[in-house]
Amino acid sequence: LSHHFYFLSQDEIDSAVKMLLSLKMSYKAAMGEDYKADCPPGNPAPTSNLGPDATDAEEDFVDPWTVQTSSAKGIDYDKLIVRFGSSKIDKELINRIERATGQRPHRFLRRGIFFSHRDMNQVLDAYENKKPFYLYTGRGPSSEAMHVGHLIPFIFTKWLQDVFNVPLVIQMTDDEKYLWKDLTLDQAYSYAVENAKDIIACGFDINKTFIFSDLDYMGMSSGFYKNVVKIQKHVTFNQVKGIFGFTDSDCIGKISFPAIQAAPSFSNSFPQIFQDRTDIQCLIPCAIDQDPYFRMTRDVAPRIGYPKPALLHSTFFPALQGAQTKMSASDPNSSIFLTDTAKQIKTKVNKHAFSGGRDTVEEHRQFGGNCDVDVSFMYLTFFLEDDDKLEQIRKDYTSGAMLTGELKKALIEVLQPLIAEHQARRKEVTDEIVKEFMTPRKLSFDFQ
Amino acid sequence: LSHHFYFLSQDEIDSAVKMLLSLKMSYKAAMGEDYKADCPPGNPAPTSNLGPDATDAEEDFVDPWTVQTSSAKGIDYDKLIVRFGSSKIDKELINRIERATGQRPHRFLRRGIFFSHRDMNQVLDAYENKKPFYLYTGRGPSSEAMHVGHLIPFIFTKWLQDVFNVPLVIQMTDDEKYLWKDLTLDQAYSYAVENAKDIIACGFDINKTFIFSDLDYMGMSSGFYKNVVKIQKHVTFNQVKGIFGFTDSDCIGKISFPAIQAAPSFSNSFPQIFQDRTDIQCLIPCAIDQDPYFRMTRDVAPRIGYPKPALLHSTFFPALQGAQTKMSASDPNSSIFLTDTAKQIKTKVNKHAFSGGRDTVEEHRQFGGNCDVDVSFMYLTFFLEDDDKLEQIRKDYTSGAMLTGELKKALIEVLQPLIAEHQARRKEVTDEIVKEFMTPRKLSFDFQ
Repeated sequence: LSHHFYFLSQDEIDSAVKMLLSLKMSYKAAMGEDYKADCPPGNPAPTSNLGPDATDAEEDFVDPWTVQTSSAKGIDYDKLIVRFGSSKIDKELINRIERATGQRPHRFLRRGIFFSHRDMNQVLDAYENKKPFYLYTGRGPSSEAMHVGHLIPFIFTKWLQDVFNVPLVIQMTDDEKYLWKDLTLDQAYSYAVENAKDIIACGFDINKTFIFSDLDYMGMSSGFYKNVVKIQKHVTFNQVKGIFGFTDSDCIGKISFPAIQAAPSFSNSFPQIFQDRTDIQCLIPCAIDQDPYFRMTRDVAPRIGYPKPALLHSTFFPALQGAQTKMSASDPNSSIFLTDTAKQIKTKVNKHAFSGGRDTVEEHRQFGGNCDVDVSFMYLTFFLEDDDKLEQIRKDYTSGAMLTGELKKALIEVLQPLIAEHQARRKEVTDEIVKEFMTPRKLSFDFQ
Repeated sequence: LSHHFYFLSQDEIDSAVKMLLSLKMSYKAAMGEDYKADCPPGNPAPTSNLGPDATDAEEDFVDPWTVQTSSAKGIDYDKLIVRFGSSKIDKELINRIERATGQRPHRFLRRGIFFSHRDMNQVLDAYENKKPFYLYTGRGPSSEAMHVGHLIPFIFTKWLQDVFNVPLVIQMTDDEKYLWKDLTLDQAYSYAVENAKDIIACGFDINKTFIFSDLDYMGMSSGFYKNVVKIQKHVTFNQVKGIFGFTDSDCIGKISFPAIQAAPSFSNSFPQIFQDRTDIQCLIPCAIDQDPYFRMTRDVAPRIGYPKPALLHSTFFPALQGAQTKMSASDPNSSIFLTDTAKQIKTKVNKHAFSGGRDTVEEHRQFGGNCDVDVSFMYLTFFLEDDDKLEQIRKDYTSGAMLTGELKKALIEVLQPLIAEHQARRKEVTDEIVKEFMTPRKLSFDFQ
């Protein structure tokens, strides 16, 4: 016979409830159905465009914090387009981009890495009519360490800046990272500055690019906070609950944060660049998991008298261990980091890159490898520029003519110079250069 | 901006489910009821210090947006002190203020108009030890029109600034008014500037006073937003739901706003005044309905390493029609406005001020009037400086020696010069003076 007195403080109850709710979400993501407690569920089915991207047992789960799939091939992006209500980037659109810019489409377009869009035709209409637009992308600086996957949106955005010759704003959401992670404000800010160096090393034009930390820029801009408040007035807790899965135990900082990621979609958030103009169209290249923020933004825009931002969505960059596993900054073997040496790259690819090859050389020669699940091949589609060479590798590996070691060698030979060159460019990024990129100032461009 | 790949093994799912079940048991043990998955645990009954100030049919209701009582005498302030958990400003504390400052206590102290406090003894300890503190008060600029009741906190704050010789920050919550009212940003901001003129006309020292619009200052301060985010990280939706009664249908701007009213309680929100010092005690004079904001602030302060602000609470200024009715900026007859002419004041008091007198002169002479419900007498307690004269009026009116017309005449004779002098001082407040008060800058004071 025994009894226990049980007493929990309000904080302990709050954090227990928070954990319960987050476990519920993980459970739902993993099991494909709601965790059923003792009382009957009352959540309505997600039917609206702004509803949560809930999944049934066979479906993938994608939101800004969780990307989950059971398929070694990764997320089913065609299904995602249907579920998110975006449009596929098809051959016709790619051809139109080529005609408009007079440039060969970037390999990310040619290979379906940027695969989905919203209103890109409208941006091209404007561009062809000599009307202005600007680019907006961003990064959540959760640590100093960035891996090659983090560069995808920036590599593509740099290309867009070059071929369209337009201004670009890059948001470092250090406030978000402070809110979500166990970081101090100073840590979050210093990660923003460190990450900015890697971003600058992608080759952005200093005369056309403004990089900003939220923590800094909020206190330096006469336009940013005003747009944040405007957006916050037009989005309810019910809406962010539906879109982002926030709960009553979440802090009010998280709950109101989506407005801060939304605000740079509107040109008068940057009076130093666009003065008080509110009519300049924004184009946002980003990974598809960020789309919920911008569906919300597009919902709000007409209600506050601003144009809806257009979007270009990329697929996810797979972890070395396979497209269905988690890439983690705390696991150095889950990806190629921008600080890796040539030797580390070689070892990681050889040891950790999930292979679509057969168990023995004999079987491989006979039946061939599977490029659809082979991570080395996936990485090559991201980084090998030469289409013919990539197609030859695909054929040879599929037929069995090319062995896994040879495929990995091809990837290593692409990654080693890519990372080395990045490191060389990053070394040239001085504190002064970072400071200039991060100073609110005029940008040079021709707007009518 | 972030995304993570999430994959759970069967083992991880099993242990998550196990944890869920054990958390459910802990929850039941702590809360005394089953955890309900689809209806998250709103707030428990308001027992905690941070609980909502809910009322039963007989109790008054006080929150920042609603003050409601069924008694003609107005709110029961002694009960409010118990319910809010603050302390009464008693004779002993008033004597201590007199000793510390060497000044006669302001009539608002002598007459119990500032009736409640938190940690005022701590402020006096600091003051007596030559340690610095600063004053913080504010106003929600909901329209251009201000009435005499709006001046109460400012009249008292000016006295505090004079007798303690300390710096003062005054927050104009134009963002709040934009969020709560049907106003544009420009309207809310212009009301902030107009109201600032009336505030300046109270006689604040330009060398020791900083007045700021949230919409403006958020984009001009390197410290304000950082403190806002810090506070927002440490307050959950459950908490603001409990404190302010927010619901899921409220916009995320309202939900996160309390952090913006909290932030000026911390000295490093004003780096231009206090540099990066975080240890300077703040004293907030305000009407008691603002206390929920600062209970929240005091709850958060130690968790982010800042001192708790101290408070001095005032009673409410009654409407002309009686202490239980609502004063409304849209009803010009509900109060004396700062723009009223001498004639308007006379007419309003004579026509609209609720009287505690008898129905006929004969009855009045025989039974006397009731000062406890007479609005003219209440207004005199706010504005007539002479204690002896006030006491004489109280006696004469209660005995029936003084008639209602005579009482109203006494009030008119106090209000007419008070308003006329305010208008004269306001006229002298030029746009340049407003601009200087509202410019972030050093203030002059001696801090060790």
